[in-house]
Amino acid sequence: MKFKIRPATKEDCKEISRMILELAVYEKMPDQVKISHEELERDGFCQNPFFECLVAEVPEKHKSKEGFTVVGYGLYFYTYSTWKGRTVYLEDLYVMPEFRGNGIGKGLLSKVAEVGKKKQCVRLQLSVLDWNTPSRDFYAAKGAQDLTASEGWHFIRFDGQNLDNLANEAPKD
Amino acid sequence: MKFKIRPATKEDCKEISRMILELAVYEKMPDQVKISHEELERDGFCQNPFFECLVAEVPEKHKSKEGFTVVGYGLYFYTYSTWKGRTVYLEDLYVMPEFRGNGIGKGLLSKVAEVGKKKQCVRLQLSVLDWNTPSRDFYAAKGAQDLTASEGWHFIRFDGQNLDNLANEAPKD
Repeated sequence: MKFKIRPATKEDCKEISRMILELAVYEKMPDQVKISHEELERDGFCQNPFFECLVAEVPEKHKSKEGFTVVGYGLYFYTYSTWKGRTVYLEDLYVMPEFRGNGIGKGLLSKVAEVGKKKQCVRLQLSVLDWNTPSRDFYAAKGAQDLTASEGWHFIRFDGQNLDNLANEAPKD
Repeated sequence: MKFKIRPATKEDCKEISRMILELAVYEKMPDQVKISHEELERDGFCQNPFFECLVAEVPEKHKSKEGFTVVGYGLYFYTYSTWKGRTVYLEDLYVMPEFRGNGIGKGLLSKVAEVGKKKQCVRLQLSVLDWNTPSRDFYAAKGAQDLTASEGWHFIRFDGQNLDNLANEAPKD
């Protein structure tokens, strides 16, 4: 199946928002999604955007059974390693189930790698849930290292009241 | 001991570079550091910087035994959750050993939380090595969740030849 990968525009945010929810359903946490397409428009298409996004599009004749032609996305941003420098971080990679097996996910991943290399990034990073064996195998097959397994890195998060408490305790100037 | 936390300037990059190496020694991977202060200057003090940094400074009379007054730093950047939105990510938090126990680490962490809240971030995230019990306890005591333990998130990385291979396989326009 032919498909095209292109940078997302502001007009794609409704489609991206729909797929964010589909991905969360797959990850078994759909009630966690609090982001609207308006917030995606605001945060991704401003000066100093918080993220960039690629979308995969199929021709009209291959549209999904619900009539969608935007069938996948890769949302990423730039982070920084104080050991190695610029890094591109792939937050979400998603292809609608009926379009899998056509190389679209691989295409999105490679394109993000290419975009990162153009920005002189020396790493592409992402996170994956331990039960998500298909994804873990997919990345491992492409040569990725699992740093949680090999070096013991853990994710830590503050949010809600804990984050407020921290911020309120900040030293005053 | 009195200390001041302030945004880093380009002129602080040599000091930050020194402390990045000290932190890597503590993390038992000093040979991993490939970043020079010139790269920090370039990447942190350009338009659309790849990171921001706070430094902790003590008065001249409390300078370190080697004569340093910049004795800690917190280096962070902005990431994005497609479920929750803007996030501030603390890449490094470091206080020189002889200045620990004075609330400087806590001050840097809180200040990063405050900066994040001002940017409407709903999360502060970071990573920690599993053997680093003092840090893990420090964050847990402040209410942080360990998402690797609770939800099973793993870090995945592509770099070097694997990253080049990916980028080279990107679909052409």
